[in-house]
Amino acid sequence: MEKYISLAHGDGGELSHRLIKDVFIEAFGDGNAALFDAAMITMTTHRIAVTTDSFVIKPIFFPGGSIGKLAVAGTVNDLAVSGANPAFLTCGFVIEEGFPISDLKRIVTDMADEAKKSGVTIVAGDTKVVERSSADGVFINTTGIGIYENTSGCSLEFEEGDAIIVSGTIGDHGIAVLAARGGLGITVPITSDCASLNKMLAEVFRSTDGVRIMRDPTRGGLATTLVEIAEDFHLTMKINEIDLPIREEVHGVCDILGFDPLYLANEGKAIIVVADREKEKVIDILREFPEGIDAVVIGSIIGKGKGQLLLETPLGSKRLLTRLSGTMFPRIC
Amino acid sequence: MEKYISLAHGDGGELSHRLIKDVFIEAFGDGNAALFDAAMITMTTHRIAVTTDSFVIKPIFFPGGSIGKLAVAGTVNDLAVSGANPAFLTCGFVIEEGFPISDLKRIVTDMADEAKKSGVTIVAGDTKVVERSSADGVFINTTGIGIYENTSGCSLEFEEGDAIIVSGTIGDHGIAVLAARGGLGITVPITSDCASLNKMLAEVFRSTDGVRIMRDPTRGGLATTLVEIAEDFHLTMKINEIDLPIREEVHGVCDILGFDPLYLANEGKAIIVVADREKEKVIDILREFPEGIDAVVIGSIIGKGKGQLLLETPLGSKRLLTRLSGTMFPRIC
Repeated sequence: MEKYISLAHGDGGELSHRLIKDVFIEAFGDGNAALFDAAMITMTTHRIAVTTDSFVIKPIFFPGGSIGKLAVAGTVNDLAVSGANPAFLTCGFVIEEGFPISDLKRIVTDMADEAKKSGVTIVAGDTKVVERSSADGVFINTTGIGIYENTSGCSLEFEEGDAIIVSGTIGDHGIAVLAARGGLGITVPITSDCASLNKMLAEVFRSTDGVRIMRDPTRGGLATTLVEIAEDFHLTMKINEIDLPIREEVHGVCDILGFDPLYLANEGKAIIVVADREKEKVIDILREFPEGIDAVVIGSIIGKGKGQLLLETPLGSKRLLTRLSGTMFPRIC
Repeated sequence: MEKYISLAHGDGGELSHRLIKDVFIEAFGDGNAALFDAAMITMTTHRIAVTTDSFVIKPIFFPGGSIGKLAVAGTVNDLAVSGANPAFLTCGFVIEEGFPISDLKRIVTDMADEAKKSGVTIVAGDTKVVERSSADGVFINTTGIGIYENTSGCSLEFEEGDAIIVSGTIGDHGIAVLAARGGLGITVPITSDCASLNKMLAEVFRSTDGVRIMRDPTRGGLATTLVEIAEDFHLTMKINEIDLPIREEVHGVCDILGFDPLYLANEGKAIIVVADREKEKVIDILREFPEGIDAVVIGSIIGKGKGQLLLETPLGSKRLLTRLSGTMFPRIC
């Protein structure tokens, strides 16, 4: 087989056919004959969730993951936080001419591994090739279909006093990827948190009907995601700076370089707003999983009517947080 | 609003929020609050079809369409040929920094128009921005979900004598796009056939249980798609050169520049293999639609066991056709 992707790998002819066979079917299996065409699926319920995400992360391999692992876990998590059970994925590749086929194989293997781990089936795919310099390496779109089973899901009905939980340390993915770019000028022993959270989150949904909303704080970080919730549902939310779980190394890099961990991307974390009475139960469940070992309550809903996110400092003063404004870092996912 | 896409439009913060509101929700409507997150869908059946396609066409605007129209019609057609009723679409954008927002609006409007025309709902989306020169303008992934209703669909059971029908002239899209690139050195009055075929094809499925298979001959053209069918189902297929519907202008360009219309891309055509007894009925139905006015029988299945596609010339000699081998033209869709 060739060593590098050529334009002919994307023209739908003989080389495309071989690429699909030798790389994609090799990794994903040929159980589904329609792997690279429309796939027929029989659902177990009538209620499904659908989400789509394109991944353009740079570099494509980083400590803790790759664009392939991320493309599966990212879409799995989007479904999981909605209360759906991730079931099916499609993947669409845009590849730059000259891209090493060995790298493509590594990426596709990561996708297959993560799909297996999270229990989703890759049912359809597509590959396009563009000329050298018309794309940067490889971009992957994954679209996911989830099934709503017998859980109550997110109620979207909030009360004053509801607790805000984050499932673990924030900013790990952002710092790990920046460090992998070599642009920080320092070496940091930080690994991306990139992981599929669906099994852990399903356990939370199964155990309580008190979940108001779940979200995954990816691009824009914890603060942007919470501002979105606050604005969408006209809530005043308060988080306590002292309770934020942040690794010492992440703190260190942020202090030196002037980043704010509240706005750094995460790829294996969930924000859970839950009835106050259920917060301990949810924390206990999260901590049973390696991905949730650092789960903590970071704040609460303190009012309704206005959409506001407040950060309370250790000295008791309050700061209004806004969405991320102006790019901290492009291509973080 | 800004005139050009900046990296901050892709970082998930304030500018991303405004781009979604001002461009995407403006065109697609805000009926679905989860437009840019996981969408919840209630299905009317348990059997669905799923397909995904990335579009990297160059130029993004061409006679007869745009990357936006194509991204909807292409995925709609992939579902329609499988016998499913296209119902839901997701869209994922990768946009180059500096891309004009006016062009993005035009593309998104084309998507909304084509979605309306074909009766599909856009339920989820995503936007990423990459640095200048890390992508060429805009790439769009669409993933489609179709519903199988009360039609028998494709039987995939073939018999000797089955007729091969093409729903209209071949090669129009390929030539129109090449001409739009300005690379042919000649002006050609050809418009792309880019169109959603779902209503026409649904009528065919409703009227007969004799459809063996339907496919849309896009990248790789009519010949590559037929070779795939022949190989996948171990059929000897024969098509007659004299019966191929090819516009005079397309013939002309192919003669001058040495292209083979059998390998040129189509974006509004279907190949239908149907029981011989049903072929007139199917042709009659196709011709009731503007997109099927030039539908004809071009050949038949003449044997089983081997996967072969033969082209019979007007003089009676037979030529074995293979898949497209080596790129004719990159980025045709």
